[in-house]
Amino acid sequence: MVLCEIGNTHYHFKQKGRIWKFPANKKPDIRLEKDEAIYAISVNDAALKRLSSHYPVVDLEPFVSLDTEYHGLGIDRAVACLAVRDGVIVDAGSAITVDVMQNGLHLGGFIYPGLSKFQQLYAQISPRLQKALNFAVDTTKLPQSTVEAISYGVVTPLICSIYVVARHKEIILTGGDGGYLARFFNGAIVDQSLIFKGMEKIIKEL
Amino acid sequence: MVLCEIGNTHYHFKQKGRIWKFPANKKPDIRLEKDEAIYAISVNDAALKRLSSHYPVVDLEPFVSLDTEYHGLGIDRAVACLAVRDGVIVDAGSAITVDVMQNGLHLGGFIYPGLSKFQQLYAQISPRLQKALNFAVDTTKLPQSTVEAISYGVVTPLICSIYVVARHKEIILTGGDGGYLARFFNGAIVDQSLIFKGMEKIIKEL
Repeated sequence: MVLCEIGNTHYHFKQKGRIWKFPANKKPDIRLEKDEAIYAISVNDAALKRLSSHYPVVDLEPFVSLDTEYHGLGIDRAVACLAVRDGVIVDAGSAITVDVMQNGLHLGGFIYPGLSKFQQLYAQISPRLQKALNFAVDTTKLPQSTVEAISYGVVTPLICSIYVVARHKEIILTGGDGGYLARFFNGAIVDQSLIFKGMEKIIKEL
Repeated sequence: MVLCEIGNTHYHFKQKGRIWKFPANKKPDIRLEKDEAIYAISVNDAALKRLSSHYPVVDLEPFVSLDTEYHGLGIDRAVACLAVRDGVIVDAGSAITVDVMQNGLHLGGFIYPGLSKFQQLYAQISPRLQKALNFAVDTTKLPQSTVEAISYGVVTPLICSIYVVARHKEIILTGGDGGYLARFFNGAIVDQSLIFKGMEKIIKEL
């Protein structure tokens, strides 16, 4: 069994315990055994179509059932939430989604732009803000330069708002910037296979 | 005496108690009395040059002296800070600057992108996030839809981080979105003439 989560920019695969990613705008090269299929979830229609045209693909979307009042929850968020009974799930990729689970119920969540997106945004606002962001910025001290001010301005608001919605719940970080964000939360868990755990749970219940 | 603060997108004038703005990429039409000059500060070199080529302009920048360890503080931020002895100054325009003053000393500050900049950013991340932001979003409840999630994701992180740096200090809001942000802070002051107050203080001391 091969698992594939398709995001805006990458395919993410899990096969025989190994996890790797591949650009979403190219054809990934997968070795399948006889009668083996790829179980996929996707937020990227074009990339799902590409994968399905080359390999036998089972789209898990119809089988995803999360207890929530949220309308239009991305399938990747829903599947990651299924892997967590109680806690806050932060998926930090090209967008950063923050979702709150309590007793298996999804209470809601918000979306912040991905950290790497901000640099270009500041540059568009003013040439004076056209600086490389420094994600090692000290968030415990008030900034004393433009680079510190814009870096702090990206990171600190996100951290503060995650604390506000978490209210002492466990924080589980995933996605490309999940490891980086872990330093700001005592006791947070980084789990890059969270979404695959959700997918495995769905397949088990099928 | 005419005062002019030149930002990234607009000239802001104060003349005989009246305040108005004008696009920074056009020639503003000002009626000056005999021997009257325009006192200006500017973060927009091209617009300052345009104004100076049509009117007698005194650039106040050399006379701005703020007690700070911050390197490269924008002149508009420095002048607004000069008008406040103790408090947090939030100037919410195309960028949102947040500066902390204590006993006349500038302790530092950070820069968040202007609220109107986020909509385009979300749209660039994914077509699924291409939605009109709703700045009337309820920030006291977890979002239950994409529009709520991205709107909350712009506003709540900013508010949380302002509270964190303010620590019970008075909050003074200015700039185009200053009035909007006031609803989130009990007892906050909206002062659209803050920067002119700082300029008047400088001129008085000359």
